[in-house]
Amino acid sequence: MTVPDDPLPASDVLVVGDGLIGLVTAWRAARRGLLTTVVGRHCPCAASGVAAGMLTPATEAMFGEEPLMRFGALSRDRYPGFVAELEDESGVPTGYRSAGTLQIAFDTDDLSKLTELGELQTRLGLKAERLTARECRRLEPMLAPAVRGGIHAPDDRSVDPRALLAALRTASERRGVRMVDDRVTDVVVSADRARGVRLRSGGELAADQVVLAAGTRTPGIGGLPEGVVPPVRPVKGQLLRLRMPRGEPPIVTRTVRGLVKGSPVYLVPRAGGEIVLGATQEEMGDDTRLTAGGVWELLRDGHELVPGISELEIAETCVGLRPASPDNEPLLGPTRLPGLHLAAGHHRHGVLLAPATGDAMAEALATGELPDYARRFAATRLS
Amino acid sequence: MTVPDDPLPASDVLVVGDGLIGLVTAWRAARRGLLTTVVGRHCPCAASGVAAGMLTPATEAMFGEEPLMRFGALSRDRYPGFVAELEDESGVPTGYRSAGTLQIAFDTDDLSKLTELGELQTRLGLKAERLTARECRRLEPMLAPAVRGGIHAPDDRSVDPRALLAALRTASERRGVRMVDDRVTDVVVSADRARGVRLRSGGELAADQVVLAAGTRTPGIGGLPEGVVPPVRPVKGQLLRLRMPRGEPPIVTRTVRGLVKGSPVYLVPRAGGEIVLGATQEEMGDDTRLTAGGVWELLRDGHELVPGISELEIAETCVGLRPASPDNEPLLGPTRLPGLHLAAGHHRHGVLLAPATGDAMAEALATGELPDYARRFAATRLS
Repeated sequence: MTVPDDPLPASDVLVVGDGLIGLVTAWRAARRGLLTTVVGRHCPCAASGVAAGMLTPATEAMFGEEPLMRFGALSRDRYPGFVAELEDESGVPTGYRSAGTLQIAFDTDDLSKLTELGELQTRLGLKAERLTARECRRLEPMLAPAVRGGIHAPDDRSVDPRALLAALRTASERRGVRMVDDRVTDVVVSADRARGVRLRSGGELAADQVVLAAGTRTPGIGGLPEGVVPPVRPVKGQLLRLRMPRGEPPIVTRTVRGLVKGSPVYLVPRAGGEIVLGATQEEMGDDTRLTAGGVWELLRDGHELVPGISELEIAETCVGLRPASPDNEPLLGPTRLPGLHLAAGHHRHGVLLAPATGDAMAEALATGELPDYARRFAATRLS
Repeated sequence: MTVPDDPLPASDVLVVGDGLIGLVTAWRAARRGLLTTVVGRHCPCAASGVAAGMLTPATEAMFGEEPLMRFGALSRDRYPGFVAELEDESGVPTGYRSAGTLQIAFDTDDLSKLTELGELQTRLGLKAERLTARECRRLEPMLAPAVRGGIHAPDDRSVDPRALLAALRTASERRGVRMVDDRVTDVVVSADRARGVRLRSGGELAADQVVLAAGTRTPGIGGLPEGVVPPVRPVKGQLLRLRMPRGEPPIVTRTVRGLVKGSPVYLVPRAGGEIVLGATQEEMGDDTRLTAGGVWELLRDGHELVPGISELEIAETCVGLRPASPDNEPLLGPTRLPGLHLAAGHHRHGVLLAPATGDAMAEALATGELPDYARRFAATRLS
């Protein structure tokens, strides 16, 4: 293979995508001594910069997804060590908070769904304390008087994904990861092996192994034999960043997830007075319009749960596209094409799964095989 | 009086404020041959750039305000000639539309309020046709099936206030009005007469007559004897600019005002696919935060009236401050201080009242007296 325009020496690992999954893969690979390059260009609708940052492995959407829930719990349990290392190496705070999560049922139907979820959580060994409405309001006094009860998950956490991105970028650079601000158009394949990538700006970069971690853009990358990369579809999410008036105490002190007449909604507080209110889940293709209906649903359900949000400022409106695989589980590790890996399809769980994904990918890149705990999510399962 | 730093010769008329009311006053004064200067600096929360542009003299808020309604009807009737002249002089289209207004009652209580309003409109000689729910939906098929009935006001109009501002600025400049991009700190008073203004940048501008048309900033202008300028308070309005998907027909074809469980809401369509959804009315002082509660109310009531708005993009969120006098009616013409006029306090009606205000102010500036039709609104009534 000739790569005439390559200004860089060949990498051991070239990661396509500079979101959370791409950067965590690069950082962990570099810590294993692999010479690593990341190619990416910030996109405002990339999931990483929009995500709320809940680290809640058990959610109302995950019935029938027990293996994913276990993987999530494993990743959540790695978070304290992960952020400690990351903040130490980068010097950048990640906004990690260990205040737990309160899951709230708005009406009787919601309560029965939540009860089933609580039983599932207990069965999986996740801490889940059933609370009366009064106990919920004792934890979060601004909850609507009408709520019917809830579950307290004291081990759930949250993190600020934008801070996490910044920390991962700095830590990666300090570990010698090379950052290339460009888009990848194609994987360069020769003699049945991935050998590098072609850039939109024209050049090529050579690498021993290529990781596609480009979120919803992953299937759009050319040059690959058919079927090597499963479809990854965008799942649109709209959310609002609300802000407390200066000097006022936060309206909620921990992540509050609600089921409001069957509709899920959450409030994630951050240091500094920001509250993330999210999020819609819409199968709308590449549509990234902020819509009247999406914002209305968020405000309606958020208001039912915590009426006092009415007084908060809407500081920012966000639309993001979550990358979802056909079975809604991540696609990790080697593909059928030698030299080509995937780290994609994390759907709603990219932030939660970042530490475990980084570890699993570094293992696969160093040894050629995913660790046991990640094998279920092998990229080859769908191809 | 000495104005040593004045780079301009003294004006016949100096208008403080470059919003709709200031510019319409300047343009009409210039057309009377008065040498006119406008001093102002764009403020994003000024009412003119945020207003929806309904020209609907009879609204649910105006019971007990019959004289204002008559003034509004007079001004609306001047609109066709006004925009024809303005577009001719400026070459700038104003987005004037003559499609009429449909007033909709959501429930039975709303219908009885609307019925009273219809009777008032008829008594005042305004065209108002009572329609059944079916007739309303024949005019606007996207109305919610549940609406109870309405009133069609075929003579109501709408205009695009941002386009109107641009047209007034161009027309004024073509009439020789001088535009000064600055803020006025004080009126210069000597020998018991207004003689000009002092600028924030330092200089002074001399003028034979000064008009304060600075909206909610009007009472903050210094240098004046107490009581000459009545209080003008800000009334906060939040609204949304929605956008139809490209190529789709508009969701409403005329202004639709609704009463939804007692809460007023409106949708104003514009050429190009924009729909303005407004507006809150909040007595919050200078607060210009976009709030969760404000946006939620708009979307909730808008959705009750026209459920299909859910599909529309939120293209822009706006917060404006309407300038309201103590009796909520405009303050026009000469004050007790010779040489000082007011054109302020137009509250929700600045766009509607612009033509009549321009004419009345030009008359007062040329002759010293307001015309009969504007005399009720004399600035001296409250001082």
